[in-house]
Amino acid sequence: MDVLEVLKRRKEVIDKKILGFFNSYIEESKNVSERLEEYLEWIKDFNVRGGKRLRPSFFITGYQCVGGKDMESIMEACLSIEAMEGYLLIHDDIMDRDELRRGKITLHKAFEKMYRKKFGEEGAEHFGISLAILGGDITNIIGKEILLKSNFPVDKKIEALKIYINADKTTNMGQMLDIITEKLPLKDVKEEDILTIFKLKTSKYTIEAPLQMGAVLGGGTEKDLKILSDYAIPLGQAFQIQDDILGMFGDEKKIGKPIYSDLKEGKRTLLIIYAYQNGNPEQKKKILASLGNPNVTEEKLEEIRKIVIETGSLDYSKKLAKELASRVKPIIEKSNFTKEGKEYLIGIADFLINREL
Amino acid sequence: MDVLEVLKRRKEVIDKKILGFFNSYIEESKNVSERLEEYLEWIKDFNVRGGKRLRPSFFITGYQCVGGKDMESIMEACLSIEAMEGYLLIHDDIMDRDELRRGKITLHKAFEKMYRKKFGEEGAEHFGISLAILGGDITNIIGKEILLKSNFPVDKKIEALKIYINADKTTNMGQMLDIITEKLPLKDVKEEDILTIFKLKTSKYTIEAPLQMGAVLGGGTEKDLKILSDYAIPLGQAFQIQDDILGMFGDEKKIGKPIYSDLKEGKRTLLIIYAYQNGNPEQKKKILASLGNPNVTEEKLEEIRKIVIETGSLDYSKKLAKELASRVKPIIEKSNFTKEGKEYLIGIADFLINREL
Repeated sequence: MDVLEVLKRRKEVIDKKILGFFNSYIEESKNVSERLEEYLEWIKDFNVRGGKRLRPSFFITGYQCVGGKDMESIMEACLSIEAMEGYLLIHDDIMDRDELRRGKITLHKAFEKMYRKKFGEEGAEHFGISLAILGGDITNIIGKEILLKSNFPVDKKIEALKIYINADKTTNMGQMLDIITEKLPLKDVKEEDILTIFKLKTSKYTIEAPLQMGAVLGGGTEKDLKILSDYAIPLGQAFQIQDDILGMFGDEKKIGKPIYSDLKEGKRTLLIIYAYQNGNPEQKKKILASLGNPNVTEEKLEEIRKIVIETGSLDYSKKLAKELASRVKPIIEKSNFTKEGKEYLIGIADFLINREL
Repeated sequence: MDVLEVLKRRKEVIDKKILGFFNSYIEESKNVSERLEEYLEWIKDFNVRGGKRLRPSFFITGYQCVGGKDMESIMEACLSIEAMEGYLLIHDDIMDRDELRRGKITLHKAFEKMYRKKFGEEGAEHFGISLAILGGDITNIIGKEILLKSNFPVDKKIEALKIYINADKTTNMGQMLDIITEKLPLKDVKEEDILTIFKLKTSKYTIEAPLQMGAVLGGGTEKDLKILSDYAIPLGQAFQIQDDILGMFGDEKKIGKPIYSDLKEGKRTLLIIYAYQNGNPEQKKKILASLGNPNVTEEKLEEIRKIVIETGSLDYSKKLAKELASRVKPIIEKSNFTKEGKEYLIGIADFLINREL
């Protein structure tokens, strides 16, 4: 199976459906007030521009793994997890002060700019944040609406919703922990702390929840859910390690956000923690000076890249990502999932840790 | 029936249950990371300090109206709407830059202060906002968890959840419209615009949704829901008009937030709109100078109060509130709701538009 081809094919359908959903949502809002339209258009734009649509694709595969056959209904229900992704990104971008997402302006920055044009400078930043908080909240609501409206039995929808809500909670706790950890002295942050954050913030809602939601809708058992979880947690951690590597060494154009941003934000990545722990005093000093420094330059970034390589941190991170990812194949191979489910899960695991975007 | 006594009695139970819920939530979070505790304690504090608990009380009454008898279960399920209130207030306080809520510090300000103590000035405000966005999101999730865990049949819970989500959506649209309306020239804002915002932002989640959710869990029919809606919309509008009157003329100690805040924020209340429309050129000028001015003084507030009285705006607002509230009694009287349901709904309507806090 060519998983990239599957991913691409699904993405086309998903993109179209999301566009249609937001268009009818905007139509509906006109009954409330015409004044909302231009703002909702931006919320739509953010959600429509979409990335790889990994999460709804996992959702579909979870359903297929347990033998689900109603492709039309699952293609609708899976949009719910993509809306959850949209809501989390909108709120995260505010917290991380990010200006670019998926190659375009972040939502709070878009609203800020809009305000500036209409009403001037004063209050622009606050307006941007306020409207983006609401934009996230509304996208979150849409995710739940999609699931509740979907064409599955009520008891299955409730089970899926419980997984969704649990993942939402876990992700928010992970984000909270991430923000707190950014403020801790580097020496107090351990590899274990980082992997906990990855599990909470990435594995759960990116892989585990979509797979399990799909599986539940397809009639999956407790045992199926357990297998999917065992697959999802290490793969999510590997994915996040790879994401952080790309965030420092990747191609800005391909990943759609500036490679500076993690460093500027002071994000505690495994790359940084390991380099700090294994660096000499001078290297430690340089890391401390650049990490979380909003004025960091291309030159300084290059310096940190060098330290990450010299301390063996890049190699270590790559190795750990591969090791984590290698655990997941046997789990799937020995399951009794359908052939198409197994092939996708194994293929996508390979892709996720070898990708460049 | 002494509705205030009923409200007070219910509040005692509700307060205790909310406290217990957050305590066990914090216990559970320790499995994730001990580092979260002090932050979750603040989220608990915000939710526990609680106001009148009007919304869960409406929830209980909605259930009683249609003959629901399982008081133990409804006392649990009703907490969900209070968590929704908590989440909306936390996010609203960020947007409105409010510093006080229910007589204590708002959540984003609490986190900001905490940060300042621990890590210094730089980044304190942003940290406060970030953690409060998450605090709101987590409270929101808790609301849904409570409902899903409650002791009612699955199909009824799904119906209640749909109402909940719809109210959440409507409230967010209302808040968006409110923020946008604050930026419009005063002359472009009509009474109708204000009443639409009140309907979206207040009537729906304060009165309609809790009543309908309770009714649905108690086996209410479409017709019951319609009656509750007909009661809720005008009463919510009346309630909000009264709220705005208290926000300008009330006792700061009783209402738990500064009487300046609406004026400083530039909130488009009916009081302001009517006064502006009916003011002479000099009065108009004074309103424009103070509205949305963050440096407004006690003296200026007094000046605006005078204009609101002299233009007849205060009388007009009071009259409109009474007129809206008077519509709701006959709707309830001719319904076939239970005696205790009817008495509460009529009694609370009286209280809401005559209250001083």
